[in-house]
Amino acid sequence: MTRQIKLGVSMRGLGYHASAWRLDGVPPDGDTSYEFYQHITKTAERALFDLVFLADYVALKAHNVPAGYFGRTTGMVGLEPVTLLSALAPNTRNIGLAATVSTTFQSPYHIARTFASLDHISHGRAAWNMVTSFQDEEAQNFGDDEILEKASRYERAAEAVEVVSGLWDSWDDDAFVMDRNSGVYFDPARMHKLNHKGKYFSSAGPLNVPRTPQGRPIIMQAGASERGRRFAAQFGEVLFTLPQSLRQMQDFYADMKRRAAAAGRDPDDCKILPGISVVVGETEQIARERLAYAEELLDDDVAIEWAAASTGTDLKAFPPDATLESVLGGSHEGSVSYLERLQAIQQDAGRPLTVLEAARHFCVHGFPVVVGSPEQVADELQGMFESGAADGFVFHWQVIPGSVEDFARMVVPVLQERGLFRTEYPGATLRDTLRG
Amino acid sequence: MTRQIKLGVSMRGLGYHASAWRLDGVPPDGDTSYEFYQHITKTAERALFDLVFLADYVALKAHNVPAGYFGRTTGMVGLEPVTLLSALAPNTRNIGLAATVSTTFQSPYHIARTFASLDHISHGRAAWNMVTSFQDEEAQNFGDDEILEKASRYERAAEAVEVVSGLWDSWDDDAFVMDRNSGVYFDPARMHKLNHKGKYFSSAGPLNVPRTPQGRPIIMQAGASERGRRFAAQFGEVLFTLPQSLRQMQDFYADMKRRAAAAGRDPDDCKILPGISVVVGETEQIARERLAYAEELLDDDVAIEWAAASTGTDLKAFPPDATLESVLGGSHEGSVSYLERLQAIQQDAGRPLTVLEAARHFCVHGFPVVVGSPEQVADELQGMFESGAADGFVFHWQVIPGSVEDFARMVVPVLQERGLFRTEYPGATLRDTLRG
Repeated sequence: MTRQIKLGVSMRGLGYHASAWRLDGVPPDGDTSYEFYQHITKTAERALFDLVFLADYVALKAHNVPAGYFGRTTGMVGLEPVTLLSALAPNTRNIGLAATVSTTFQSPYHIARTFASLDHISHGRAAWNMVTSFQDEEAQNFGDDEILEKASRYERAAEAVEVVSGLWDSWDDDAFVMDRNSGVYFDPARMHKLNHKGKYFSSAGPLNVPRTPQGRPIIMQAGASERGRRFAAQFGEVLFTLPQSLRQMQDFYADMKRRAAAAGRDPDDCKILPGISVVVGETEQIARERLAYAEELLDDDVAIEWAAASTGTDLKAFPPDATLESVLGGSHEGSVSYLERLQAIQQDAGRPLTVLEAARHFCVHGFPVVVGSPEQVADELQGMFESGAADGFVFHWQVIPGSVEDFARMVVPVLQERGLFRTEYPGATLRDTLRG
Repeated sequence: MTRQIKLGVSMRGLGYHASAWRLDGVPPDGDTSYEFYQHITKTAERALFDLVFLADYVALKAHNVPAGYFGRTTGMVGLEPVTLLSALAPNTRNIGLAATVSTTFQSPYHIARTFASLDHISHGRAAWNMVTSFQDEEAQNFGDDEILEKASRYERAAEAVEVVSGLWDSWDDDAFVMDRNSGVYFDPARMHKLNHKGKYFSSAGPLNVPRTPQGRPIIMQAGASERGRRFAAQFGEVLFTLPQSLRQMQDFYADMKRRAAAAGRDPDDCKILPGISVVVGETEQIARERLAYAEELLDDDVAIEWAAASTGTDLKAFPPDATLESVLGGSHEGSVSYLERLQAIQQDAGRPLTVLEAARHFCVHGFPVVVGSPEQVADELQGMFESGAADGFVFHWQVIPGSVEDFARMVVPVLQERGLFRTEYPGATLRDTLRG
């Protein structure tokens, strides 16, 4: 079968535009509305998307926001991701259900158990996006004053994935015999205790959930650092990146496929789905007008605070007209991906940017953005897909639900006509969908 | 309005009969089947029940089970309760969704967040059954060799409830202004940081979920010990007991209503719902035949192991024909409720029982059982309700789903005719339902 594009949608809040809630057609309370997320998920499923995805943050995203502007952005509150995905499972049939859970504050036993439960409830559509947390304000909700330093976080995360995967393997596929006549419910010989005792975790097992429809739920991974890449090559079935340029996408893609092969895996089982945004219109002009409309509704101060919170940098300590260079010069404990994103915004501009300019771009676009008519958008996606830059995309739209409706209606049919996207789901589970 | 009976159903596994999975009409894989739980929940909702309830245990219930009989009982595996309840929310409208989460292995921030999310998703129908865990095999999945001793567990649990409740109060009802023109999403003055620093937990807050439809989800509590009662009087809106006799039910009821009043609460806001079982048939004879049929399918060794696991006693260390008295003489770290249950089985019998006899009764009946025709069952429930023994019942049936269907079809109409049970839901939230 011809290789085809994989598609996902990030359902974070109301979209990645920091003032998305102020736009017409967006329900401002969508953040905490099951019905809002159900609409997005069903729209994506009708369009045959591979998965919906929920990012997570275990605190109010409040650091670095000065009093006067605190409370002016969306995306600070929401619903716990696994709880929400589970509610979306019964009324959908095929679309994958992916959520972030941080290994920093949750025990591997609980992670293994909830995703195994979600995999049973959804009949094989669960995916765990493994992250480590990097903000002190998250740690402070869980009894610690400061977050672990970076090296320990990754080491701990690697061990957590080992424990979670081991617990998912607690039962053979055929362990539950359920023979009414003999009275044998499960065969103890087909059950495996884990007895893990490591540096950060001990867990005896077995998991008290039988083996799931997918065997192991899909593991997603988003780390861009060297440690994150090593990790992703070993465990990740969906790799989620925050690309800055076509060249960088191609380099990452080649590097990760090589690493996956070196780890003894089929590189095609390791799908690389960059996070990008799309603004589509019936014509290019309509698309550009839409973007301009979205850009109008963002206050300068909100932009800087939002970018600071997302990147984990102290952007607010600098005057708005300071050069971005002066900010990025120091060392940071924050997210490598987001820092690179700020740098790339400047590279794209082709000139030195101020803190304010970079922050405004960061907040409105959120992620690299493809703008144009349906044919233009399809051309760009096809270009990235065919030039060894991506296996598909996880859309991080400025504003949902409008963007997913537009994409489903205008771009999906073009991709299907070109044979680049499926016209039906190939199987029952998310893994079937990703491989089909 | 006349006081009316409150009804709940415990959905643990396939029922409390240790060999329920061997009976006709029970799907043996129901333990991990969303569709199985959905059927029970929808049946209970059609019958206007107040709530469905999921007990929990964070390990395979395996201790004290000798190799030869390990794997012969059901109820050892299942789905994570909050994940399951959330999946049940979208396709139901009125029935309360209650689950156990132990404060021993889960952080208060996570408990507060998941139940707040469930309360939003279900539009106000979430209830948390607060328990402490008491088995080493649970602790061993979470990095500890042995469970905390009892006094510390309760002290820790009391602090956990304080933190969870505090986090639920993070936002005033009207904190989310969402004024598009001014750009104010929420009003910081109506947000409250918790800044809890206690003996067992620290949590800064605020919760990253807005105030929920119920304000605070319902707190359920099941402790029967002195410490458990003090706790329940202060926090519990639904008290769940394991009664042994009418006299004991009346004593507990009077004691708890007095304690709730002493804590400054309206005693009627503290609903006391004993866990009992009902076997109903069109005639008394049919009901008794049904019970006999269920009793046949239980092996002796399975009975002893099951009772040992449930009570946390070392029942297996005694010969099956030892007197129950010789077992109960020692001191135990297990559950007071279950130990009292074993004693009560003997009291009911009116003669000394052997370990085997007591265990068989424990495993087949699970809980005190009312047997008879619809009128006879209604008479007994009415008797308990009107004699100051109960505000209602959480049914712990031997076998589901048959029992809930039978009760809905045969007993609910009798209770309704007598004006003892509602004929429609009074409001939108679980609290409305409990008070209505």
